[in-house]
Amino acid sequence: MSVKLNDSFTRGFVKESELEYIAPQAEAALSLLKSKKGPGSDFVGWVDLPVSYDRDEYARVKDAALRIRSMCSVFVVIGIGGSYLGARAAIEFVKSNNYNALAKNTPKIYFAGNTISPSALAELLEICRDEDVCVNVISKSGTTTEPAVAFRIFRGFLEEKYGIEGAKKRIFVTTDRARGTLKAFADRAGYETFVVPDDIGGRYSVLTSVGLLPIAVAGIDIDAMMSGAATSRDAFLREGSDNDCLRYASLRNILYRKGKTTEILVGYEPSLALFAEWWKQLYGESEGKDGKGIYPSSVMFSTDLHSLGQYIQDGLRNIFETVLDIKTPAATVTVPHDPDNIDGLNFLSGRTLGDINRTAMMGTLIAHADGGVPNIVIEANDTSAGSFGELVYFFELACAVSGYMLGVNPFDQPGVEAYKKNMFALLGKPGYEELRDTLQKRL
Amino acid sequence: MSVKLNDSFTRGFVKESELEYIAPQAEAALSLLKSKKGPGSDFVGWVDLPVSYDRDEYARVKDAALRIRSMCSVFVVIGIGGSYLGARAAIEFVKSNNYNALAKNTPKIYFAGNTISPSALAELLEICRDEDVCVNVISKSGTTTEPAVAFRIFRGFLEEKYGIEGAKKRIFVTTDRARGTLKAFADRAGYETFVVPDDIGGRYSVLTSVGLLPIAVAGIDIDAMMSGAATSRDAFLREGSDNDCLRYASLRNILYRKGKTTEILVGYEPSLALFAEWWKQLYGESEGKDGKGIYPSSVMFSTDLHSLGQYIQDGLRNIFETVLDIKTPAATVTVPHDPDNIDGLNFLSGRTLGDINRTAMMGTLIAHADGGVPNIVIEANDTSAGSFGELVYFFELACAVSGYMLGVNPFDQPGVEAYKKNMFALLGKPGYEELRDTLQKRL
Repeated sequence: MSVKLNDSFTRGFVKESELEYIAPQAEAALSLLKSKKGPGSDFVGWVDLPVSYDRDEYARVKDAALRIRSMCSVFVVIGIGGSYLGARAAIEFVKSNNYNALAKNTPKIYFAGNTISPSALAELLEICRDEDVCVNVISKSGTTTEPAVAFRIFRGFLEEKYGIEGAKKRIFVTTDRARGTLKAFADRAGYETFVVPDDIGGRYSVLTSVGLLPIAVAGIDIDAMMSGAATSRDAFLREGSDNDCLRYASLRNILYRKGKTTEILVGYEPSLALFAEWWKQLYGESEGKDGKGIYPSSVMFSTDLHSLGQYIQDGLRNIFETVLDIKTPAATVTVPHDPDNIDGLNFLSGRTLGDINRTAMMGTLIAHADGGVPNIVIEANDTSAGSFGELVYFFELACAVSGYMLGVNPFDQPGVEAYKKNMFALLGKPGYEELRDTLQKRL
Repeated sequence: MSVKLNDSFTRGFVKESELEYIAPQAEAALSLLKSKKGPGSDFVGWVDLPVSYDRDEYARVKDAALRIRSMCSVFVVIGIGGSYLGARAAIEFVKSNNYNALAKNTPKIYFAGNTISPSALAELLEICRDEDVCVNVISKSGTTTEPAVAFRIFRGFLEEKYGIEGAKKRIFVTTDRARGTLKAFADRAGYETFVVPDDIGGRYSVLTSVGLLPIAVAGIDIDAMMSGAATSRDAFLREGSDNDCLRYASLRNILYRKGKTTEILVGYEPSLALFAEWWKQLYGESEGKDGKGIYPSSVMFSTDLHSLGQYIQDGLRNIFETVLDIKTPAATVTVPHDPDNIDGLNFLSGRTLGDINRTAMMGTLIAHADGGVPNIVIEANDTSAGSFGELVYFFELACAVSGYMLGVNPFDQPGVEAYKKNMFALLGKPGYEELRDTLQKRL
């Protein structure tokens, strides 16, 4: 089975005829994507990636991952946005959000260069002090502030610890194939390099070397992941009314046009929290432009049923939920019997938490739909690498289609420059003198 | 200095006259709260807590914390919603989100019983296997499913590891003062107990034993925290046009009535992420009812400027931001000079990350306001225990006032029962047979 959509809990909100009326828009969006002539079509390399990926590069990723695993106890991944969210999502989804704390035969993995926080960097250096460390810096240009600063500091750390020659074997650079100062420097310094493809944007890059190297270092089966993505590609990259990917794109556009302007991605496992963060970048950055777009939010239940649950049940009705329904949990834990029954839960004795968790999900789907919140359910088999690949491709494709239906370019992110320009000006970066003067008058 | 509000970046969106016109509503809401005659007035014990807290109980918390620190390497805190978010927020805010990974002379602290995930529980048991463990179970009734199941399992774990007598000294119960099966059982079993006060709801309980015991175990100065809360109480529990707490409540109600229906809490440190989760429960559960309320969301910048940043800059204009401006960062890290200047960042050489981070904040405030997003700035001195206490009281008081201005009972959470009822029915809990039949027909 590939990913499936269950729309039982949107039926009270969306008529079958609405889906029929919007279907031609979804089909047209898919055709536009496949024609490679739509807005942003220089960035659709991810569409065929699961079948057309560079086998040599892929083999080098696997080889480097094995070397890294044998060389270090801590692997530091330096990158921001799409350069870290996919890998981190995969590691937590397939392994665990407790990956670093659990005993294992693979290195601990820390993510750096995604914040300017001094504490975050100082603490990571402290954590690394007595460990054997390798570093993977991921940056297309090499000039993005956050990863560049972290890389300066970790390069110094490694060179001090292992010498320049020793550090050389421990630094792995994922960057542009040919251009850019980071690529030039890496070649000169003798670092092994991997490619950020020209035709795949950051938020669509998890199945390139950007994501695959850290994922492989964690000991995850990337063959299964690529094959999962290929399964979704086969299932969804085609016209037809039974295409759940088009159905997801259609439902969310219908709901948006009804005033449901916030979409909440729901998981029932803490290990899905980073998958939700990856999804939020994918959808928020692809659709949030030109004054429109669904606001992407997320919750992890049942945890957040005791937090945002009240709002979702009973607050302003401009929200809908998309629920990740993972059929088979990764572990089995049974509720023990308590002769004292102090909590009154003996009716659960002998039941598995997986079973109770799914029942909580069913009860919540009904409650939230009754409360006026449409719920789209996306089903996947389990938290395997294959299911991760399936879900990634499903959501990427649905996002592109949905963005075209909304009438935006789903592959650019012009708004990300606005804060950077102001920051550079206020920091006194050469070339920003005029803006600096203007801004300082406003502060 | 106590907490301060800076409204420079809301001025383009809210006229001074609007604040004048709404001021009487804010004053009335504050009076209603102080009169203890408003909706939910059985739950306003938090208002005077910073000055009237039970000194004996407080001394016992400190004493137990010292014993726990000497007895264990891992401290497991079992609770859901308000029974864990405040403590976890405090530990990450004052210590670090890397608290468990860093070297220290206090136990690692894990939070359990806030999910039904079997993996989460199985992994924590694995982590605890070779550690010395103490447990704090926090539940008013003792019958909430998630913590009750976790407590059954951890009680068994401790009794197997230390025997019934040994386990007795390692189990700490925070529950109702007198009623409930958990209190009765704890007394019978000989566990030390602490009180969840009757007049303080879960989301307002961080400065009671509910939050203070785990916070003290982490080695945080709870005296300073209580004193910070008292500082805010002095500053804001009073009428007057220069009251920043009333100003915050007023601004968010004005913005809501203009269609800004989502509020995004912004931090610039990863260690503020759990504070934002605490804030989301506080505001979402207090205001999200009767079909209304601001949807609370959060981001950590600059991380999420490369994710939700695009949407915030340029998406649908129904959002506003509330920015936590922490004046002094907890660490100092300086950007090293790079003779190669491969990243073009030598204009930052010798500057501190704290300085760059604040400049990123200024640049972002300007960019987002220019993009049509009002930004409220809440200033605090630092990430000390005192500042945490100040912020907690500021946001609690503003929340109560804001809820009364919206016209809701900010102290109940009727919607939280809806999913529970369905879940119990579907799980076959005695007494829910009729609902069970109804629901099963719908699945």
